[in-house]
Amino acid sequence: MRRATVLGAGGWGTAFALVLADAGCDVRLWARRPEVAREVAERHTNTAYLPGVELPAAVRGTADAAEALHGADLVVLAVPAQLLREHLHRWRDLLPPAAPLVNLAKGVEVGTGALMADVVRQATGADPGRVVAVSGPNLALEVARRQPAATVVACADPAAGHAVADACTSAAFRPYLSDDVVGVEVAGAVKNVVALAVGIAEGLGLGDNAKAAVVTRGLAETARLGVALGARAGTFAGLAGAGDLVATCASPLSRNHRAGLALARGQQVADVLLPGQVAEGVRSAPAVLGLARRHGVDMPLTEQVVDVVAGRRDAAEAARALFARPRTTDWI
Amino acid sequence: MRRATVLGAGGWGTAFALVLADAGCDVRLWARRPEVAREVAERHTNTAYLPGVELPAAVRGTADAAEALHGADLVVLAVPAQLLREHLHRWRDLLPPAAPLVNLAKGVEVGTGALMADVVRQATGADPGRVVAVSGPNLALEVARRQPAATVVACADPAAGHAVADACTSAAFRPYLSDDVVGVEVAGAVKNVVALAVGIAEGLGLGDNAKAAVVTRGLAETARLGVALGARAGTFAGLAGAGDLVATCASPLSRNHRAGLALARGQQVADVLLPGQVAEGVRSAPAVLGLARRHGVDMPLTEQVVDVVAGRRDAAEAARALFARPRTTDWI
Repeated sequence: MRRATVLGAGGWGTAFALVLADAGCDVRLWARRPEVAREVAERHTNTAYLPGVELPAAVRGTADAAEALHGADLVVLAVPAQLLREHLHRWRDLLPPAAPLVNLAKGVEVGTGALMADVVRQATGADPGRVVAVSGPNLALEVARRQPAATVVACADPAAGHAVADACTSAAFRPYLSDDVVGVEVAGAVKNVVALAVGIAEGLGLGDNAKAAVVTRGLAETARLGVALGARAGTFAGLAGAGDLVATCASPLSRNHRAGLALARGQQVADVLLPGQVAEGVRSAPAVLGLARRHGVDMPLTEQVVDVVAGRRDAAEAARALFARPRTTDWI
Repeated sequence: MRRATVLGAGGWGTAFALVLADAGCDVRLWARRPEVAREVAERHTNTAYLPGVELPAAVRGTADAAEALHGADLVVLAVPAQLLREHLHRWRDLLPPAAPLVNLAKGVEVGTGALMADVVRQATGADPGRVVAVSGPNLALEVARRQPAATVVACADPAAGHAVADACTSAAFRPYLSDDVVGVEVAGAVKNVVALAVGIAEGLGLGDNAKAAVVTRGLAETARLGVALGARAGTFAGLAGAGDLVATCASPLSRNHRAGLALARGQQVADVLLPGQVAEGVRSAPAVLGLARRHGVDMPLTEQVVDVVAGRRDAAEAARALFARPRTTDWI
């Protein structure tokens, strides 16, 4: 796969474009905003998202989706979860018919409860074997600085998975393979909710034991939901599950984490984010809970997060309620 | 269970004695060193391990094992892993015949490759249904300060598991149940090796993505070993697996972590620990690898840690070797 197109020039889309270029691809990076496209094209930087990073010459910026997608062997979708469907509708006739569609967005679609791979299939008519999820402990700025990172490349078709992994294997970026697209996507979507809960725990002044318990119990309920949707439980112990949570929790500057801190202090989430920024956990939490209820899955941590986000419950009270639940078993 | 005896007055043994007292037990805490026993008995503190913590009046210190064990309904073993067998031989005739034996030590016995529950059974002749493992994200000082924490209580006999969980459930300490003693013990033993590897990664200047990858891939190889020994894979995603690693890695002052930092910088482990302190990962790593080899399990991360500890390989070279391995799958 020589020609790769990345649609979306946020931090992770841009960092992934850099990885693809390092792995030998010619990369076109589409940005919604013409000034970002111009900055990438002319100065090889995307300073708003990746300050101090120089992009390889093989990454070319454009704001023209048709130009970006023409002749692509591989298409990477790097737009926010809640905007994926509308973008795909716009791009549908531009997508090369055989190219794998690699989704980087993490979240559950509000309204439909759909996972991102479902959105991709529904909006494009693509065969499941062409839809790939990439997810893992991949803080964008570290990846862009070429600090070592591992990730999961998940696809129902092992050949497509290998081809995508080949296209993004570099000296600093190491993909592992999976065929569990549902598991990888559920892990990524609920991770944002768990990261929010870890932020809340920190905002309440709880310690590292409590935060580790939030991570682990969050992982357990995520796995319960995943298994109900057809995932394998083991995926949640892997790089897209435990791995991503470990990196996210080590990075207290993440939006979900900051949003959680604000919620614990009784502030509004909007007060701690820049205009236009979204804490995906805030958006996804009710959608995740809706999905869980439709499948009869108990997600006590997500339930409390939804109540705290909605202002129906005080964070300290939510923590007490979780601690007071009847005794249960360790794993799912 | 009203009368509980904790054998070993290090940080975790002492904190667990406090939890048992908070849960309503009368607790005798045996310390090897008479001055520690006296400090607990007379001043209700154990300042060397838990500075600033006042122990409940229900925790009574003694250096006399016979006195400590007389009439105990529950016996907690809180001595270092490599010393457990010799202590048990000494205590064998003092142990009440029906009391559950709860092990807190994490490690693999050097020489025999035995897990701690095996050591307990072999040294005491106890029935497997009486042997309980308690493990989880439980930094001792936080537990002693009554910051909320969750743990796993694992026993082959569910009734004994419930009874031990009852004896240690307090307002701030929440046990989850498991019947997978082997899994909980393997997770605890190999955790020390993974924590050492995370310290090495940090010492090499690697970022949060790399550290999360070390944690997750470490967990995957731990699960492979566990499954070969009869554990369930899911246990490694639970509180004693992922949970404990998350808390350990959030606590850069742990001995294993500091030992890893030293190794990455080419220092000796002894240079960064106090006299008499042990980084259990350093002791356990070769024993874990020996166990893995006898069961035909591939543990590439542990293998590199063993080589770095032995001075046979430079830490940077070990990291490169791990990154250059053939592509593989995400979970076990």
